[in-house]
Amino acid sequence: MAKYVYLFSEANGTMKNLLGGKGANLAEMTSLGLPVPRGFTVSTEACTRYYSDGKLIASEIEEEIYATMAKTEEIVGKKFGDPNNPFLVSVRSGARASMPGMMDTILNLGLNDVVVEGLAKLTDNERFAYDSYRRFIQMFSDVVMDVEKPRFEKILEAVKHENGVEVDTDLTAENLKEVVRRYKELFKKEKGFDFPQEPKAQLMEAIKAVFRSWDNPRAIVYRRLNDIPGDWGTAVNVQEMVYGNMGNDSGTGVAFTRNPSTGENKLYGEFLMNAQGEDVVAGIRTPQSIEQLKEIMPDVYNQFVDIAEKLENHYKDMQDMEFTIEKGKLFMLQTRNGKRTAAAALRIAVELVEEGMATKEEAIMKVDPKQLDALLHPNFEPKALKAAVPVAKGLPASPGAATGKVYFEAEDAVNAAKNGENNVILVRLETSPEDIEGMHVSKGILTGRGGMTSHAAVVARGMGTCCVAGCSEVKINEEEKYFTDKNGKKYSEGEWISLDGSTGNVYGEQLPTVEPEMTGYFATLMQWANEIRTLKVRTNADTPADAAQARKFGAEGIGLCRTEHMFFEADRIPAMREMIVARTEEQRRKALDKLLPMQRSDFEALFTEMKGYPVTIRFLDPPLHEFLPQADDDIASLAKEMGMSFDELKGIVNDLHEFNPMMGHRGCRLAVTYPEIAEMQTRAVIEAAINLNKKGMSIVPEIMIPLVGEIKELQYVKDVVVKTANEIIEKEGVKLEYQVGTMIEIPRAALTADEIAKEAQFFSFGTNDLTQMTFGFSRDDAGRFLEEYYNKKIYESDPFARLDQIGVGKLVELSVKLGRQTRPDIKLGICGEHGGDPSSVEFCHRIGLNYVSCSPFRVPIAILAAAQAVAKKEGDLGQK
Amino acid sequence: MAKYVYLFSEANGTMKNLLGGKGANLAEMTSLGLPVPRGFTVSTEACTRYYSDGKLIASEIEEEIYATMAKTEEIVGKKFGDPNNPFLVSVRSGARASMPGMMDTILNLGLNDVVVEGLAKLTDNERFAYDSYRRFIQMFSDVVMDVEKPRFEKILEAVKHENGVEVDTDLTAENLKEVVRRYKELFKKEKGFDFPQEPKAQLMEAIKAVFRSWDNPRAIVYRRLNDIPGDWGTAVNVQEMVYGNMGNDSGTGVAFTRNPSTGENKLYGEFLMNAQGEDVVAGIRTPQSIEQLKEIMPDVYNQFVDIAEKLENHYKDMQDMEFTIEKGKLFMLQTRNGKRTAAAALRIAVELVEEGMATKEEAIMKVDPKQLDALLHPNFEPKALKAAVPVAKGLPASPGAATGKVYFEAEDAVNAAKNGENNVILVRLETSPEDIEGMHVSKGILTGRGGMTSHAAVVARGMGTCCVAGCSEVKINEEEKYFTDKNGKKYSEGEWISLDGSTGNVYGEQLPTVEPEMTGYFATLMQWANEIRTLKVRTNADTPADAAQARKFGAEGIGLCRTEHMFFEADRIPAMREMIVARTEEQRRKALDKLLPMQRSDFEALFTEMKGYPVTIRFLDPPLHEFLPQADDDIASLAKEMGMSFDELKGIVNDLHEFNPMMGHRGCRLAVTYPEIAEMQTRAVIEAAINLNKKGMSIVPEIMIPLVGEIKELQYVKDVVVKTANEIIEKEGVKLEYQVGTMIEIPRAALTADEIAKEAQFFSFGTNDLTQMTFGFSRDDAGRFLEEYYNKKIYESDPFARLDQIGVGKLVELSVKLGRQTRPDIKLGICGEHGGDPSSVEFCHRIGLNYVSCSPFRVPIAILAAAQAVAKKEGDLGQK
Repeated sequence: MAKYVYLFSEANGTMKNLLGGKGANLAEMTSLGLPVPRGFTVSTEACTRYYSDGKLIASEIEEEIYATMAKTEEIVGKKFGDPNNPFLVSVRSGARASMPGMMDTILNLGLNDVVVEGLAKLTDNERFAYDSYRRFIQMFSDVVMDVEKPRFEKILEAVKHENGVEVDTDLTAENLKEVVRRYKELFKKEKGFDFPQEPKAQLMEAIKAVFRSWDNPRAIVYRRLNDIPGDWGTAVNVQEMVYGNMGNDSGTGVAFTRNPSTGENKLYGEFLMNAQGEDVVAGIRTPQSIEQLKEIMPDVYNQFVDIAEKLENHYKDMQDMEFTIEKGKLFMLQTRNGKRTAAAALRIAVELVEEGMATKEEAIMKVDPKQLDALLHPNFEPKALKAAVPVAKGLPASPGAATGKVYFEAEDAVNAAKNGENNVILVRLETSPEDIEGMHVSKGILTGRGGMTSHAAVVARGMGTCCVAGCSEVKINEEEKYFTDKNGKKYSEGEWISLDGSTGNVYGEQLPTVEPEMTGYFATLMQWANEIRTLKVRTNADTPADAAQARKFGAEGIGLCRTEHMFFEADRIPAMREMIVARTEEQRRKALDKLLPMQRSDFEALFTEMKGYPVTIRFLDPPLHEFLPQADDDIASLAKEMGMSFDELKGIVNDLHEFNPMMGHRGCRLAVTYPEIAEMQTRAVIEAAINLNKKGMSIVPEIMIPLVGEIKELQYVKDVVVKTANEIIEKEGVKLEYQVGTMIEIPRAALTADEIAKEAQFFSFGTNDLTQMTFGFSRDDAGRFLEEYYNKKIYESDPFARLDQIGVGKLVELSVKLGRQTRPDIKLGICGEHGGDPSSVEFCHRIGLNYVSCSPFRVPIAILAAAQAVAKKEGDLGQK
Repeated sequence: MAKYVYLFSEANGTMKNLLGGKGANLAEMTSLGLPVPRGFTVSTEACTRYYSDGKLIASEIEEEIYATMAKTEEIVGKKFGDPNNPFLVSVRSGARASMPGMMDTILNLGLNDVVVEGLAKLTDNERFAYDSYRRFIQMFSDVVMDVEKPRFEKILEAVKHENGVEVDTDLTAENLKEVVRRYKELFKKEKGFDFPQEPKAQLMEAIKAVFRSWDNPRAIVYRRLNDIPGDWGTAVNVQEMVYGNMGNDSGTGVAFTRNPSTGENKLYGEFLMNAQGEDVVAGIRTPQSIEQLKEIMPDVYNQFVDIAEKLENHYKDMQDMEFTIEKGKLFMLQTRNGKRTAAAALRIAVELVEEGMATKEEAIMKVDPKQLDALLHPNFEPKALKAAVPVAKGLPASPGAATGKVYFEAEDAVNAAKNGENNVILVRLETSPEDIEGMHVSKGILTGRGGMTSHAAVVARGMGTCCVAGCSEVKINEEEKYFTDKNGKKYSEGEWISLDGSTGNVYGEQLPTVEPEMTGYFATLMQWANEIRTLKVRTNADTPADAAQARKFGAEGIGLCRTEHMFFEADRIPAMREMIVARTEEQRRKALDKLLPMQRSDFEALFTEMKGYPVTIRFLDPPLHEFLPQADDDIASLAKEMGMSFDELKGIVNDLHEFNPMMGHRGCRLAVTYPEIAEMQTRAVIEAAINLNKKGMSIVPEIMIPLVGEIKELQYVKDVVVKTANEIIEKEGVKLEYQVGTMIEIPRAALTADEIAKEAQFFSFGTNDLTQMTFGFSRDDAGRFLEEYYNKKIYESDPFARLDQIGVGKLVELSVKLGRQTRPDIKLGICGEHGGDPSSVEFCHRIGLNYVSCSPFRVPIAILAAAQAVAKKEGDLGQK
């Protein structure tokens, strides 16, 4: 028969999956001989069983709980519900991954009208007994019975007020009895029956409530944000109560073995005398620093310091501990690897190695790659941030902090920057590729529509620019150039706002920012990561500036250079547009001839910047309509500029209209219809490489054909490329190696990768598009329903942020297998946004890709994730 | 060493793949002892080798050709280039599948200035010799040297004119010598060198030209239309010349063993005395009926009748033969299974069985399923059609003929029909779901934009309504309600036009139509097909009328009922719109309550019509914006109707706008966000079934959830369905079986079909969407580049018309395997448009689907194709 309940003394620290982090660590501390109140853990399997049984605890599990409870009573020597020797317990959640504050806790369970009197007698402390009872009634009612906490607090406040009392601790036993009376009255009024008096029933209801709390909305959101699977479930810990509220020789506190903000190796924490549980964090009284305990109770302090050291040595990581002192005796209620800031994480990881407590591999595992993001962008000055009140909240689309003056058109932003304005914030309903230059000059971007993967978000992340997207709380009027915040306040062009791209907050004022500090710890850890990883990390970069940034962060090449971005710049777009409106091949070639020297110099600059590292250049990808204006007045002015009639240009714009542009005339389809475009791009790439190689460099350009779905498509375009390239090489009389490969971003390409590999020297998985096609939804439109999908637990994470390994991953794995089957030395990489997502990087490592490529600011994240993929071991005790 | 060249006497009729149809049949006739001029065949492998060698004939093949030529000279006893005993040959193409008129032929090869004189002497017929020479020069120049035929014909006409001669046969030897002189002059002027005199060089150039002709544009188009793979290549037949132009005891002709128009079992054909090759079809002189040969040359006639009978008995099919009479002696130049009309195909197939010449399985194979289409729709009266001149040509989007008065708005069409106008033709730039009622009342539909799979085309085919789509030759002005044809002629509302949906022709006049005759042969063949096939055939039908039509054609159930079509009707769309603009669930439920009784009665009518057969009902699929108007004035008038402000309704329309609606908020995603819609639809289905079962029927409804990509999506919606259904069933106190299944139309669903099958009782492959997602292009937009893809031989067929077995098929097969793995008795079907395409039906049979479902008018096609899939054997000698 399956076992669902474990005494702390039966288990140990390796059983985290079964008993949750808290349960496993309580067992581990017990086995280390530390002073841990006794108890047992109801396993995570009991929780998943509870859900699969239709939110019911099976009778066999119920019996096992009662039997283990009886054993515990025996060990402790107290009895549940016995007024003469009452056993009281805490009931606390504890999942595999720590989810602080997400789920529920109940203290003092086992109290009722009779037991409370016994407790008073036994402890000779009526005040303590009723204080415990009122706490229990409130927590149980709130957590188990849905009678909300504030209603109880109102009663408590009333009694304090009636008795002229300021702090809880000044309430007398009589006062607290009155509180209890009114609490029970409220309960009965709300629920229609008396507060439950039977301890066993209290226990079972409490356990169910903890199971239920696994699925409360905030827990669901937390799991999604932290990639915690919804089917893990939570364990429940039932533990003998110890009391920090038994008088001034009692107390409770939390402490970290190192400073969780800075990482400094110094005990850090706080406590409160004569208090229980949540009082420390509730802010009713100001807690004391852990060092003050040394003066109050030197023996307890020394004992605690010893235990903290012991625990850190044991877990080989910074510990976050909860403790209670009951009448001068110390009890440990919890220990876990402590959450920490990015800076602290780096310092702790590096120092643990220096102290000989961890290997480099172990250190690598102690830093969450996603945390690094915070170190790579500016932040608000903390005090100023604390004082500021957000005026709206949108999606945290691209991290960092920005403060600046608002502009509502890309052109206005560009002009402001040209006129010396350094602090520009672009505010748009949504951005489009035409806005690219305006986005480039901006410190931050705010959009009213669009999700985490909207154009604004994707481009901003690529640039490392702060962005708050989809902020529906602001109403933007682009025409009249103003927006209003959620309070209705109006902001016109040139007025200051601030954006926090890490939280999504918008502030209606100028906030000071601080540049990120790149401490030595960061460099050290990155160096170790580089030593450990086997997966290469490249970057997606279209400009020498981006390339330089990425190199600084450690990128080993460019995995994706999107040539179209080069055509949006002010000096190129006229020629690009001329090319698009051309009616004949001849006209088109004339326009392409104008683009050639610009494109060639782009590539020369990129190659120069990336000297010695590979550069993959993707040929023109987006549908051509993206290069033309869509609004009638813009069309009119462009028509004038180009010497065409409005009707003619409007006609071209209409002709280019597509019902589903994502699935339209783009990618290699453009090169099939207009091979002269591919010719020009080949010419630019090859000539740039030859020019530089003549100067002593040794560039081997990689030409990438996008959106291939059929081998013959690739053959056709490759023929154009090879013919053009070889003609130039022959004419120049030089030797030049180059590669031609393809994106795998269409399901059909993945399914026929064995065929495709006959022509492609490399594959780069374009997992953005591959995700769109495999799921059948466009990232621009999915926002409409994804939120509902998360709420209804259909998806647990955004498939555009975290690679869907079950569906999309299956296609990627299949391609890897088929591709290598045909061409064993084929080079395989990924260049979708997933290239910078740690769990996706791990997947890429596991299935044997050669490299991942991501935006410059994600390069360190990918490097660390790649190292972790190597270092990761089953059952690792490190951070998550 | 590979063998590339075969004497006729070395080969036989089974070698069609290697020697092409013509070559194999010449060999077979030779082995049957029939009078066949001697010769040899250069194989199709030589042709594919020619292409893979970069359009070169390898020297080993060249040598083999010359060696076989030498052998043939020996057999014939004449010599190539010998003026005293010249060997002349014809060089003719011949692919595996017959492609009449698509590739090239050269006669009289081996002639030059010297040989022609020898020939004249030898035959004592100078006129004949020079007639042959001038024909050769013209054909060789045209086919091999790119000097076009009309330029030679001009010379011939001039000489005739100068000599006052009307018909070619009246030209004297001297006249013909002059023609030859001028021909050679023209050649030299064009090419810069003399007409080639060396017979061996002539031969090799001619063979290359035939190889090249495999890839001429008309051959490529023919192959695409007839599903012939581009890598088959053509063989080349080199054959001793026999001469029909040696005087009045010579002639040439073609004949069929049965009438190819009607199928009547009676020799049918024509011939021309003193003529060669193309003269018969060129229309210079009027040929005589084959029966007249009986009078002119009774012996030859009797011999020919014997041979025809022998050949038909041998091939067990109607034969199409070419013959030449040289000085009273009969030669057979070709035999092949003859092309025939659909009506003839049916009659011949049935009569061959009656005559004991074929089994039912063989008969089934003799009718091309696609041909049946012509029998299921009205056609134009043939004489009137012949006299009519098209005024524009579009895509033949939905077959049949229609004549009627033009209307430019769906509403106008509906009103005209209400006012008793029976002949309505709807003309639109493109149609949208709003136009559905107007399309329904129309006899034909003409659109200016969109491809073979545009909305208009798909819906028209579904309805069996004639449609010409994407007709860019007409300029449509919807606002002012007129269009102009390619000649600029204007047609206003109410004027007559005629559409031929089988050719794409548009006529600017009223043409009489004839209703299709359903002869007994048709019924007989269908009965046999039903006996043979194992694959079930269902129909896609949304109305009782469609269902009745499909039942008449033999459908065994409804595989796809698109419930959304029901909501577009005038009496429902207001409630549907009310539902869409609802701001709260309560408002939405109120609107749904209005739809419920209509929807329930729809299902009752369908179930009643399909009594005893399964009906699969797909829940709401399209994005909601399709139900709202998009143009501002339409929005304004609807807003007024609904008692909303323009801004409010416009806001809703804007909110519903999607960048890529195909990949947006539709399918089961609607049911996830608005489960109350699925509830209403479940209620309608279940209540309808219960109501009818109470009357003694036994309906087991099949509820189909569209666009599932993830098992949890299906679980969520299925939970809603099951909960709603079971509540009703319980409340009604009845027993009702029902099934819940899903479409597999998203690649991810196919990839995770093992998971999906845990919840789905059936899969229906939605291969339209699956094709879109797998290829990554939308059928509405693919028109922009597909034409170029065909031209460049990247695709050989439209993947929306013929299932892509390599990519999409791989996903379907995978799903079949995974689905049956989880649920061995899972019901599997297909309901995309491919369900009516013969090659796709065969694929479905092969991979073990249970049924295909297609539009009513394609049911007979699917039935026949399903039977053929069973009857098909390797190396079958039947039609194609």
